[in-house]
Amino acid sequence: MNTSTTLPRSSAKGQQTKAAIVDAALALATQLGLEGLSIGALADIMHMSKSGVFAHFGSREELQISVVREYHHRFEQEVFYPALRAERGLPRLRHLFDNWVRRTSVEIDSGCIYISGAVEFDDRPGPVRDALAGSVDVWMQALRRAVAQARDQGHLRANVDAAQLAFEIHGLILALHYEARFLHSEQALSRARLGFDRLMQSHQTRTSP
Amino acid sequence: MNTSTTLPRSSAKGQQTKAAIVDAALALATQLGLEGLSIGALADIMHMSKSGVFAHFGSREELQISVVREYHHRFEQEVFYPALRAERGLPRLRHLFDNWVRRTSVEIDSGCIYISGAVEFDDRPGPVRDALAGSVDVWMQALRRAVAQARDQGHLRANVDAAQLAFEIHGLILALHYEARFLHSEQALSRARLGFDRLMQSHQTRTSP
Repeated sequence: MNTSTTLPRSSAKGQQTKAAIVDAALALATQLGLEGLSIGALADIMHMSKSGVFAHFGSREELQISVVREYHHRFEQEVFYPALRAERGLPRLRHLFDNWVRRTSVEIDSGCIYISGAVEFDDRPGPVRDALAGSVDVWMQALRRAVAQARDQGHLRANVDAAQLAFEIHGLILALHYEARFLHSEQALSRARLGFDRLMQSHQTRTSP
Repeated sequence: MNTSTTLPRSSAKGQQTKAAIVDAALALATQLGLEGLSIGALADIMHMSKSGVFAHFGSREELQISVVREYHHRFEQEVFYPALRAERGLPRLRHLFDNWVRRTSVEIDSGCIYISGAVEFDDRPGPVRDALAGSVDVWMQALRRAVAQARDQGHLRANVDAAQLAFEIHGLILALHYEARFLHSEQALSRARLGFDRLMQSHQTRTSP
């Protein structure tokens, strides 16, 4: 038997197909929400049978969780990792916020599953809610760490509460998304940026970069 | 014919029934979202026939709009009007924010249709989206006016941009709702309040109350 040679190949092909389905599912979820995902609609888009799609995930819930993981991965790639190239402290925190704002601006048209998902799953306990909240938590921790580093580098005042400042930064992003996407406000983007600058100014030390 | 005496009476009864349906519909919408409203589910709750419910609204869309109007009315009653008793300027603005926070805290359990509705309708143009966005706009205008009054009374600095400050206050409320309702953060309430106090401090004049 040649399972040792065929399995990896078919498995690699399977992984590719699975990745392509997740890709299509993520595109669908940013438009319709995670709860808008259906195996049937995905099968149509992928020109596959429903059972073909189903074989890769086992359940709609597993598909939703795979979409959350993929979203998390892209968020990290676009918002988090590029900021690590900036100097630790306030420059990196600014870079993180800029990347977050840029990503949110793109999502003014397509929707953000961290925001729509929060509304869909805030009263539905279970593994999808846990995956989504876990993913947001990881990001919020990274944000708090970046604020703490800016403080520990002496760029922000020593008495800065990192969790408090991260909460306020999160608020600016949520207001940007709400007022631009729902209320169609054209000033939302500049207001979020000005809000961040003002927030930093009010906590900066005289020696900060 | 006695239409002149019976019509008012049946009309009053009709208004009562309609109000009771809207009341039940609002309770349902805070749990399931405006899109979760169904004439069938309402008929069950009201012990009425579907056609009986339908006769009061004509369409599901009209029912959704009635729910938005009722929510708007209650929001005004709980958040806006009580604050008018406070002194014009910073005291009234603080009162508005306190009432808004209190209402949002209640909605940590039940959900807020201004927030869930924004996600449901941000990519669905039409009369329900317009009613919802119009209602939020009226409130945001009232908030901006309260900020402008606090500035014009000399409680906040003369260079305060009312729309900018209102945007940042909105962000605090959205972060409170998100972090308390979805992430189950116990600190969200105190963070929203602290954020507001800090925001006011950074814009206050020395003579402000």
